[in-house]
Amino acid sequence: MRIKVRAPATIANFGPGFDVFGMAIDKPFDEVVVEEFNEFEIISSGYPVPNGEDNIALFSAKTLFKMLNIEGGLRIKLKKGIRPKSGLGSSGASAVAGALGAAKLLGVSNDELILKAAMKGEEKASGEPHPDNVVPSYYGGFTVIESKSPLRVHFVDAKLRGVVVLPEVEIPTAKARKILPSMVPLKDAVKNIAMASSLILALKEGDLETIGRLLDDNLALPYRKKLMPWFDEIRRVALETGAYGITVSGSGPALFAIGENLKDIGKTIVEKFEELGIKAEYWVTKTGRGAKT
Amino acid sequence: MRIKVRAPATIANFGPGFDVFGMAIDKPFDEVVVEEFNEFEIISSGYPVPNGEDNIALFSAKTLFKMLNIEGGLRIKLKKGIRPKSGLGSSGASAVAGALGAAKLLGVSNDELILKAAMKGEEKASGEPHPDNVVPSYYGGFTVIESKSPLRVHFVDAKLRGVVVLPEVEIPTAKARKILPSMVPLKDAVKNIAMASSLILALKEGDLETIGRLLDDNLALPYRKKLMPWFDEIRRVALETGAYGITVSGSGPALFAIGENLKDIGKTIVEKFEELGIKAEYWVTKTGRGAKT
Repeated sequence: MRIKVRAPATIANFGPGFDVFGMAIDKPFDEVVVEEFNEFEIISSGYPVPNGEDNIALFSAKTLFKMLNIEGGLRIKLKKGIRPKSGLGSSGASAVAGALGAAKLLGVSNDELILKAAMKGEEKASGEPHPDNVVPSYYGGFTVIESKSPLRVHFVDAKLRGVVVLPEVEIPTAKARKILPSMVPLKDAVKNIAMASSLILALKEGDLETIGRLLDDNLALPYRKKLMPWFDEIRRVALETGAYGITVSGSGPALFAIGENLKDIGKTIVEKFEELGIKAEYWVTKTGRGAKT
Repeated sequence: MRIKVRAPATIANFGPGFDVFGMAIDKPFDEVVVEEFNEFEIISSGYPVPNGEDNIALFSAKTLFKMLNIEGGLRIKLKKGIRPKSGLGSSGASAVAGALGAAKLLGVSNDELILKAAMKGEEKASGEPHPDNVVPSYYGGFTVIESKSPLRVHFVDAKLRGVVVLPEVEIPTAKARKILPSMVPLKDAVKNIAMASSLILALKEGDLETIGRLLDDNLALPYRKKLMPWFDEIRRVALETGAYGITVSGSGPALFAIGENLKDIGKTIVEKFEELGIKAEYWVTKTGRGAKT
């Protein structure tokens, strides 16, 4: 039996929804082909990732076996399509692909269990579990994490086109976490609540301009900009080119912008990055399906 | 010409939506009858409120005249149906009633202008403008304040039944403000964002149990409970009686609970208050119309 699973990249920390909002996009994705085997083996291609136990897809698959007390093994062929440390939920997608691939091989369909295994993989990769990456990569669409434990998820029926810009710099998630203060101004918290709630309504209405206006954040971005000194200038040119708004995906450096003229926006941002001596690429994308769907 | 306007009470700081969410309820309300007059006069009945310039309804009406550079006056007969300092948006409702009564007398229908006048009245009463009271009292229904300045409002098509319990204690808004810290834990801010966004979705779906679970708050309530030492015990008996959730309205002391058996819940809470030596009343209510509608 051979199982193929595709787990998409995700835009997490979407606007004001730090640690809460996440959206699957249609590309890029990680793909695994999983087959029965007498031990646990991983063969990877695409972006370079660790082998053996340190591989997140394999670790998540193995975790599911353990959780179910099942002996045996599997071989995973992983096509790593999402660049690690891009901010696009690379480890979350690998975790989902590995756990779901293993589950399908074993005939297991309990979402909670599969997500738990994937979350353990994600935790191994980034120090803590990020359901705002793992959950949308699994289910697809736009998700709201009401709580991590117990895991409670809401779905927003959003269909959004956007442009992703990925500069060739790395922002390690752990560093991006560490730079956040433990205390934040109450008024900033209130602003984010106002923006996040309004964004949910705008997403449901498909009101692009309002969605764009609400792609801002007062809780993480002001601090994380120290790791992305180019952000304000990039944002400015994006808005000048007609973007309704732009947000950092995950802990960056990937950016996600919306507007009408997505190619122009992407091209202009890439040019600005190049002016700043940073190579970058862009692609137009949209809300995507999950690994499960 | 005689104009009659009813401005409803509101449940502001609704659950996790501190300073953002507000909902009009169908009772109680403030009612004004406004007529042309050669100066500004107020005659009030019902709950005692200040006279003359210090009356919020009159002040808001006069503010609208000033904003429009109109000479003249009006006489307001105010039936004050909302208890002041109850947490039910008493001053916001009086401000809305006064400003909208004056506007109708003058043939003015600019919402922005009327709301601005009402907000000045509310500001005079409570030290700062609270659009989360004023806006739902004006428009009705459930509102989300995206931003105060410029005033941006979103509407949630929610229809909710609930029980209000009003104990005979007073919590001055200014004191309730002062007890709030200027800095809050980032993790509490994230929890509120998660709950507030999920609450919007649950309200749209009319999912009562989820709405109830989300009627919590980590940003204001933990601090304000010092002014309401009875809150945890009241909450406990409410949940035991079948309430799905309970929230403090505004800065309290009014409470708003939802569930199936609203009368039982109200009665039990009132009994518990009486056990604690506090007189209280309850009434079943629902999402209400605004002064304008």
